[in-house]
Amino acid sequence: MISMFDEAEQNPKLSDSEFARIEEPLRIQLLNEQYRHLKLKDRALVIVVAGIDGAGKGDTVNLLNEWLDPRHVRTLAFADPSAEEKAYPLVRRLWLGIPPKGTVGILFGAGYTPLLKEIAKKKSNPDKLESMISAIKKFEDTLIANDVQIIKLWFHMSQDAQRARTEQLMANPSTAWLVGKNYEKVFKHFDRARQAGQRVIEATDAAHSPWVIVPSADNNMRIVRTAQAVLAAFKKGAIKVAPSHDPAAPTKRQPKHSRFDSLDFAASINKETYEQELIHWQNRLAIAVRDKGFKKKSLVLVFEGQDAAGKGGAIRRVTHALDARQYRTVPVAAPRPFEMDRPYLWRFWRNVPSRGRITIFDRSWYGRVLVERVEGYAKRSAWQRAYQEINEFENQLINHGAMVLKFWLAVTPEEQLSRFKAREHSPYKNFKITPEDWRNRRQWPAYSKAAEEMFAKTDTPLAPWHILSANDKRHARLEVIKRITKAVEES
Amino acid sequence: MISMFDEAEQNPKLSDSEFARIEEPLRIQLLNEQYRHLKLKDRALVIVVAGIDGAGKGDTVNLLNEWLDPRHVRTLAFADPSAEEKAYPLVRRLWLGIPPKGTVGILFGAGYTPLLKEIAKKKSNPDKLESMISAIKKFEDTLIANDVQIIKLWFHMSQDAQRARTEQLMANPSTAWLVGKNYEKVFKHFDRARQAGQRVIEATDAAHSPWVIVPSADNNMRIVRTAQAVLAAFKKGAIKVAPSHDPAAPTKRQPKHSRFDSLDFAASINKETYEQELIHWQNRLAIAVRDKGFKKKSLVLVFEGQDAAGKGGAIRRVTHALDARQYRTVPVAAPRPFEMDRPYLWRFWRNVPSRGRITIFDRSWYGRVLVERVEGYAKRSAWQRAYQEINEFENQLINHGAMVLKFWLAVTPEEQLSRFKAREHSPYKNFKITPEDWRNRRQWPAYSKAAEEMFAKTDTPLAPWHILSANDKRHARLEVIKRITKAVEES
Repeated sequence: MISMFDEAEQNPKLSDSEFARIEEPLRIQLLNEQYRHLKLKDRALVIVVAGIDGAGKGDTVNLLNEWLDPRHVRTLAFADPSAEEKAYPLVRRLWLGIPPKGTVGILFGAGYTPLLKEIAKKKSNPDKLESMISAIKKFEDTLIANDVQIIKLWFHMSQDAQRARTEQLMANPSTAWLVGKNYEKVFKHFDRARQAGQRVIEATDAAHSPWVIVPSADNNMRIVRTAQAVLAAFKKGAIKVAPSHDPAAPTKRQPKHSRFDSLDFAASINKETYEQELIHWQNRLAIAVRDKGFKKKSLVLVFEGQDAAGKGGAIRRVTHALDARQYRTVPVAAPRPFEMDRPYLWRFWRNVPSRGRITIFDRSWYGRVLVERVEGYAKRSAWQRAYQEINEFENQLINHGAMVLKFWLAVTPEEQLSRFKAREHSPYKNFKITPEDWRNRRQWPAYSKAAEEMFAKTDTPLAPWHILSANDKRHARLEVIKRITKAVEES
Repeated sequence: MISMFDEAEQNPKLSDSEFARIEEPLRIQLLNEQYRHLKLKDRALVIVVAGIDGAGKGDTVNLLNEWLDPRHVRTLAFADPSAEEKAYPLVRRLWLGIPPKGTVGILFGAGYTPLLKEIAKKKSNPDKLESMISAIKKFEDTLIANDVQIIKLWFHMSQDAQRARTEQLMANPSTAWLVGKNYEKVFKHFDRARQAGQRVIEATDAAHSPWVIVPSADNNMRIVRTAQAVLAAFKKGAIKVAPSHDPAAPTKRQPKHSRFDSLDFAASINKETYEQELIHWQNRLAIAVRDKGFKKKSLVLVFEGQDAAGKGGAIRRVTHALDARQYRTVPVAAPRPFEMDRPYLWRFWRNVPSRGRITIFDRSWYGRVLVERVEGYAKRSAWQRAYQEINEFENQLINHGAMVLKFWLAVTPEEQLSRFKAREHSPYKNFKITPEDWRNRRQWPAYSKAAEEMFAKTDTPLAPWHILSANDKRHARLEVIKRITKAVEES
C-alpha cells in the first residue's frame, strides 16, 4: 500500500554540488515572486509549519527569513496558550496572527499542535477530534474566501532517520536542547505521531490549502523542497472559491412575512413607570454581572437598527449599571486601511471580550450584510458568504462561554423623519445627522430587505435577534436591559 | 489655612433651573470644540479621571460619552493589573492606551490608582512613593512633549457629603453596588484618602498637565464643572514645551575622540575557529535562556549600524540558538500613519518582551536620533529631547527585569562600498541595496556625527552600547553572541 509518507521515509538526499547548482536560481525566483506578491497585494500568504519532532522546523523558519526579504515576513510561534489566551476562544490568537495582504506569515504549529496532541493520545476523544478538525477546516475555508492563501508544510523522515538525527543533535552541545528531555518518548511514539500526522493531513488537505510533505532527513533536500513549495504557492496565486453552500446554514428559512410587521410600534411606557422599572432592571443587571458565575462567561451585545433608532441611548442605560472596568463600547464605522488588508472578521476578533467581561458593539459585523451590501461596498459573493461566516464566528464565541445578544431597534419611517428633523434643530444633536443619513433613508426598502434576510439567516437558537419597537425610546430601553438581565441571570 | 479642597468641601450646588440655562450652550460649545480638535489633529487629549470614592467618577465617564461625539472618544478603565499585564512594565498599558491625535482618551484611574493606594497605606514607603511620583511625572512630560494634552480631574466633596451620598446610593438598590462592601472603611479613611489626594495633586500638578478639582456633592455642579474643564482644555490647545534640560541626562559627556577610532577594524577570525566557537556560544546561550532564572527576566536586543554592516546575519546566528516560541524579531522601518498619530515611542512599547521572552529589534528607537535627525524627518527639538526619553524608556524596561543590549555593527566606508557592489552583483542579494543606501552613504559624516552623539548620550551603565568592528563578519557575529550569552549568564 502506498503511503503519503513513502517518499519522505526513504530519506532522499541532495548532494552539496547539486544543492549549489540549484540554490542561486531558486533564491532569485523566490525573491522575485515575493516582490510580485508584495506589489500585487491581492492576498496574504500563510505558511503553516508542522511535522514530526526533530525534523528541522525551527531551522526552516530561519531559512525562510534568510531567503525571503524578512521585512515582509512575520513569524508567529504558538506555545501552550497562556492564561490570558485561554480567556478567549483559542482560535482568536490565530485570527489576530493573520498577516496583511502582500506579506507572508509563518505560523509555527498554528492550530495543528493541539489537534496533533489530541490524536496522539492513547485514548483520544473521537467527538473532540471531529470538532477540532471541523473547526480548523472552517477557519481555513474562511481565510481562503477572504484573500488569504495557505500552504501547510509537514516535515517528515523515517523512524531510523529521526533517531540518527536526534543522536547527532544530542552529540552536539549547541543543538542538544532542540531534542529535549523526552526524546526517548519521541522514538517510542514515532508510529503514533506518524499516524496522527497522516490523519490530520487526510482530514485537512484541500485544493485551496494543500499539505506538502517535505523530506527532512537531509538538510539540502529539506531546504530545497521547502523553497520550492513556497515558490509554487507564490506562483499559483489566490484561489477563487465558489461561494460555499453549507447545508447547515439556515438558507431555507426564507422570510414569509416581514419581521417588522409583527412589531407593536405603538408600545409605549409612561415616564414614571419607566424610571421605576429602569432602576429595578439596572439593579438586577448590576448584581447579575457581579455574580461569581459570570467570571466564567462573557457577554457580547450587538446593537443594530435604523439611523436615529436610539442605539446610543439604549447602550448608555445599560452601561449605567456596569463598572467601567468590566465593559468596553466599540463604535463600528468604515474599516481603516490596515483593517481592509485583513479578512473581514479580523477587526471584530480584536475586540471580543475575555472571560468575565462585556463588549458592546454599536453597529457590528452585520454591517457586511447591511450597509456593505446595500451600498455595494462588498461583492455579492462576499456578503452572501458572510451569513455563514458570522454564524460560525458567533458559535465560536458561544462555545467558549459567551452570551451573544443581538438587538435590532426598529423605528417606522415616520418616526425616523421626525427624529431627523429634531436632530437638525437641536444645536448639540445635529452632529448626529449627516447627508449620509438622508441618503440612507432614501434606501429604506433596500435596507429593510437586507435586514429581513439577515434575520432569516442569522437568527440562531443560541444567538437570536431581539427585534424591538423603538418608536418609544423608553419602551426600547427597558426591553433591552430586561432581556440582557434575564439572559445573564439565566445563564 | 486655605486648602485646595476648600471649595469642593463646601459642596456647592447648582439649581435645576440654573443647570437648564447653562446646559445647551455648554454642550454646543463642547461639541464644536471637539470637532475643531478632530479637524486640527495636532494632538490627542487625555482626560484622567480620579478622586475620592463615591464622587460619581463612573457617571462622569458616561456623561462625557453622551455630551461628546462618542465615535472619537475612547475610554480605558484600569483594573488591578492582570498576570499578563504584570509580565510587562506597568507603564506599558498606559502607553498602549494613548489615543491617536484628533481624538479624546478618558483614562479612568490611569497611573494614579496605584500611587494613591501607596500613599493611603498606614506605612507607605517614602522611596517607593518618590519613585512612583517621579515615574508619573516623567511619563506625563514625555506625552506632553509628544503632542498629547493632559487634564486631570479630581472629583471631591466633604466627608459629610460623601457619607450622605453613600447612604443615598445604598438606599437605592440600583446603585448600591457602586458603594461596595467596604463603605464603612471609606468613611473611616476619608482623611487619609484626602491627604493622599492632596499629596498627589501637589506633586503632579503642572502647567502643562493641570489638575482640576471638581466639586461633586451636587450632580448638576459636577456635570457643569467637568464639561467646563474639558471645554477649557480644548480651547487652550497644545502646550509647547521648551526642550527640557534634565541634569541627570549625560549631556556633559561630549565625545572627545571618536568611538570608532578605537575600534580594531582588522580584527578577524578564521573559518574553522569561528565555527567551533559559534557552536560553543550558541550552546551556552541556548542553555542560559532556558534557565529558570530567565523566566523572571527578559531580553531586549537592539541592532544598529551602517547599511550592509551585517545586522541580519548576526541576528540569525543568535536566533539559531533560540526557540521560535521564545523570541520575536521586529524589523523597524518608517512609521506607518497610525504610528505617526502617537508619541514616538508608542510603537516600541507595543513590541517590548514580556517576562521570559526576547525581542530583537533590527533597527530601533534610535532611528529618532539617526535617520530622522540626519534626514530632517524629526524636528531638532524632537530628536534632542529623544536622548532623555530613550534613556527613560530603557530604564523602565531594566527596572522591570529586562536586559537591554545595544549593538552597533561598524564597518569602514571602504568595506561598505565593496559590500554594496557585491550585493548589486548578487542576484538574490540585490534587493538589499537601493538608491537610498547610496544616498545614505553620501551622508556618511552626518551619520557618524549622529552616532557619536548618540553613544555619548545613551551609553548608560545598565544599557551600554556594544560597538563592534564588523569588517570581518565572523568576528562581529561571534562578539555579538558572546556578549549576549555572558550578559544572560551573569544576570
